[in-house]
Amino acid sequence: MAEGGKRLTGTVYGLGVGPGDPDLITVKGLRILEAAPVIAYPATMEGESTARAIVDTHLGNGKTELPLFIDISAGHAANAPNYDKAAAAISAHLEAGRDVAVLCEGDPFFYGSFSYLFARLAEDWPVEVVPGVSSLTACAAALGAPLAAGGDILTVLPASLDEKVLRQRMDAADGVAIIKIGRHFAKIAKVLEDAGLLANARYVERVGFADERSLPITEVKADEAPYFSMVLAHHRGEAWK
Amino acid sequence: MAEGGKRLTGTVYGLGVGPGDPDLITVKGLRILEAAPVIAYPATMEGESTARAIVDTHLGNGKTELPLFIDISAGHAANAPNYDKAAAAISAHLEAGRDVAVLCEGDPFFYGSFSYLFARLAEDWPVEVVPGVSSLTACAAALGAPLAAGGDILTVLPASLDEKVLRQRMDAADGVAIIKIGRHFAKIAKVLEDAGLLANARYVERVGFADERSLPITEVKADEAPYFSMVLAHHRGEAWK
Repeated sequence: MAEGGKRLTGTVYGLGVGPGDPDLITVKGLRILEAAPVIAYPATMEGESTARAIVDTHLGNGKTELPLFIDISAGHAANAPNYDKAAAAISAHLEAGRDVAVLCEGDPFFYGSFSYLFARLAEDWPVEVVPGVSSLTACAAALGAPLAAGGDILTVLPASLDEKVLRQRMDAADGVAIIKIGRHFAKIAKVLEDAGLLANARYVERVGFADERSLPITEVKADEAPYFSMVLAHHRGEAWK
Repeated sequence: MAEGGKRLTGTVYGLGVGPGDPDLITVKGLRILEAAPVIAYPATMEGESTARAIVDTHLGNGKTELPLFIDISAGHAANAPNYDKAAAAISAHLEAGRDVAVLCEGDPFFYGSFSYLFARLAEDWPVEVVPGVSSLTACAAALGAPLAAGGDILTVLPASLDEKVLRQRMDAADGVAIIKIGRHFAKIAKVLEDAGLLANARYVERVGFADERSLPITEVKADEAPYFSMVLAHHRGEAWK
C-alpha cells in the first residue's frame, strides 16, 4: 500500500457491517468505516441499500458514496455486467489513491455479493476482508438456540434448493440453518415436517432490524416470509443440555 | 430485570468476543464488557483462558473475575460437574444483582461451551446472547476465500468425525469448513485427497492471534496442527468468479 512513505493506491475493504443492529459492527470495522473516504454498497436498481442503512448512524459527513447497482431479481450470472461496472467504479477510486470500504451485510464471505467483487478486484488491488457477525449466529442468538456444539455437523441450506436435496442434507446433519426463505416458505415447512424436524424448528425474520420477529413456524403465513428470514433446527432438540 | 425502578437480579450475557483479534469484538460487546461488574470465562484447570486473553487490552480495573474451570481433555459429559459449578458461581452474582458477562471465543452459539451454561441458566435468569464474529468467517477472511455464495450448501465438520462420515458430508456439500483439526490432521488430509478436494483446500491456524499462519495444506506437518486450525474447501474452486 505504501512505499517510500508515499501512498500509491488505495485499499479496498470488504467490510462486514453485521446483521442489522448498528452496534453489531466490530470495533475494527467501525474504525475503517470512519476513516475511509469512499464507501460503496450494493443497492437495488432503485437505490435502496440495506448495508448502507445498517451503518447510517455511524456515518459522518464528507464521504463519497458509491452505490453499486445490483438487480436482485436476477441471478449472479445475469448481474455480471453490473459487477463489472461496480468493480470499475471502485478501481477508479483505488487508482486515485483513495481507500474504498465496501459495506457488506453480515459477513463479506458468507453468502454475500462481495465474493463477486472480490473475484474482480483481488488480483489488481490490495484487498482486506474484515469479517463481521453473520446472520447465522445473530439468528441463533435472537432465538436462544445454539447452532452446534461438540461434534455436531452443521449445514447451511439456501431455501431455493429443491425438496429432495433439502431433505437429504437435513437428514445428514445434526443442525441445519435454512436461509433466504422468502417465497420458499411452504416448501421448507413441508420438508421440515417430512424430516421430523418441525417440532425442533425455530423461525426468525429480519434479525437486528426494528421489525425483527420470531414465531412458531406453524404460525408463519406462507406468503409473508421475507427474504431475510431463517429457520434453525436441530435433530436432537436441545442436545447441549 | 428491573421492576418499579429497582433492579432485582443481574443479567447474564453470553458475550461473543470474536476469533482472536481484540478489535473484532463488536461495539455492543465492548459496551457490555466495559459495563459488567463481573466477567466470567472458560479456563483450563491451570487457569489459562483464551477468551480472557482476547479482551485483555479492553479490560479496565475493578472487575470481579470468575474463571470457569473446564477440563478440555475431557468431553462435555465428563465436564458436567464443572459446568454445574460454573453455573452456580454465576448464579450467585446474578442473585446479588450483579450482571455477569461470560466471555466466549468467537460466537457463543457456534461450537462454544456457552451452550452448556445456557442450558443451566436460561430458565432461571435473564440471559442475553451477544453474537460475535465466528472463527468460520474470520478464517475465510484470512484466507481470502469466500465460504459460500448464491445457492451453495455449506457444511461445518468437526475434525473428530470418522473418515466415512467426513467423506460423505464433503461430497454432499459445495463448501466445507473442517474445524478443530489438531491431532486429526493426517485423517483430514487423506479424506480431502480421496474427495478430490486437496487442490481446493486451504489451511489456516490461530486466526487473529499473533502467531496466525496459513499455508498450503501439503506443507502442514501432521503432528503440528493446533486445535484452533481450520481447512476450507470448495468443490467448484473459486466458483464465484
